[in-house]
Amino acid sequence: MSIERPYVILNAAVTADGKTDTIARQGAAISSPLDLARVDRLRAGSDAIMVGGRTLLGDDPRLIVKTEALRAERRARGLDENPIKVGVVTNANALRLDGRFMTFGPARRIVFTTDQTDQAQVERLREREIEVVVLGAQRVDLTAALHYLKQAGVQHLLVEGGGVLNAELLRKNLVDEIHLYIAPLIFGGVSAPTFVSGDGWLRDEALQLQLAAVERVDDGIVVHYVPQTV
Amino acid sequence: MSIERPYVILNAAVTADGKTDTIARQGAAISSPLDLARVDRLRAGSDAIMVGGRTLLGDDPRLIVKTEALRAERRARGLDENPIKVGVVTNANALRLDGRFMTFGPARRIVFTTDQTDQAQVERLREREIEVVVLGAQRVDLTAALHYLKQAGVQHLLVEGGGVLNAELLRKNLVDEIHLYIAPLIFGGVSAPTFVSGDGWLRDEALQLQLAAVERVDDGIVVHYVPQTV
Repeated sequence: MSIERPYVILNAAVTADGKTDTIARQGAAISSPLDLARVDRLRAGSDAIMVGGRTLLGDDPRLIVKTEALRAERRARGLDENPIKVGVVTNANALRLDGRFMTFGPARRIVFTTDQTDQAQVERLREREIEVVVLGAQRVDLTAALHYLKQAGVQHLLVEGGGVLNAELLRKNLVDEIHLYIAPLIFGGVSAPTFVSGDGWLRDEALQLQLAAVERVDDGIVVHYVPQTV
Repeated sequence: MSIERPYVILNAAVTADGKTDTIARQGAAISSPLDLARVDRLRAGSDAIMVGGRTLLGDDPRLIVKTEALRAERRARGLDENPIKVGVVTNANALRLDGRFMTFGPARRIVFTTDQTDQAQVERLREREIEVVVLGAQRVDLTAALHYLKQAGVQHLLVEGGGVLNAELLRKNLVDEIHLYIAPLIFGGVSAPTFVSGDGWLRDEALQLQLAAVERVDDGIVVHYVPQTV
């Protein structure tokens, strides 16, 4: 584990054709019951759960541990019952104060953003005890964000997308493991999102992974990869 | 096996993030050596190999059996050494007469197209002993195309993409098996292609698959699915 940043696990649920949502982008359910339980254990074992701007503003996820027994286990270990919720969002002006990210809890919340978020919104969020950290003018400096989290006591960080955040973390070699659930579904659609978007890599620069494990879970597959840093 | 159409296997090689090519779309290599051997056996066991228009015009694939031993085996069984090459292309005007699809062989060749292909090009192709079959005004009627192939003696058809052809075949319930090689690579890119594109399905209409098999091949995974027809 780096002294500079947490150990980072990137988790995603995709269809057999690689999609994380349909073309409608309404947060289509992809995980199976056993996979949802796997993700909940992964959350319970993490110190913080991070999502990117489109996921935060569009899906407005709860980002809490769903299983009471897992929350009780965390409390018994002297931890908060939920990991820290972390949003990475260039412009947080549209972050709803009455949304799920803001209201489900209890949980500590950190929002990394840029100068593009109005000072008035920063103050509104801070009034609701959100830690707002401004890191950058155009895009959030992810290296600095992970360093901040490490300083805040985060040893294990779970990243739950979306594709732009995943791509940036991978590009900067900030990912230690990738966990993928591949559902027996096809969404199709040329505009449907995938779990790594952004600008992409050309063939010579493509990110090489090592296949660490593959197992059947319900009717799908869970694959574990480790990014190879050359 | 239907009396109306061949048994259809759809094969694709994708990255861990679901891409069939990089954003540059220059036909990036994805398969591993063992996977290439698997695809060659799949080709040798087929009566015809089909690709869609973008693949045909952009990648200009050879579509032949690469391994001499497999070609010899086909000859010993009284078959042509290569399966029939089949192109499905709305507008075939840009099909190069000196390209790989046209010149690598020997192989029987069939091009399904629409009225959008100029009659002069149809005649040029026919002069080179291509069977040009005009099926439709706007899009090739795939049901009719598969029926034509069955009549032409094709019992086993291998489809090798791209995403638009795959999507149309799946939408019309014309696929019996899907074979996916998932390489330990990430290409990323919001515009990089996936193996099922087209218009996509909404969540309620998403295509349900049955996971038939999963195995490790080199550093990747080969997954076999069977589409569920409701």
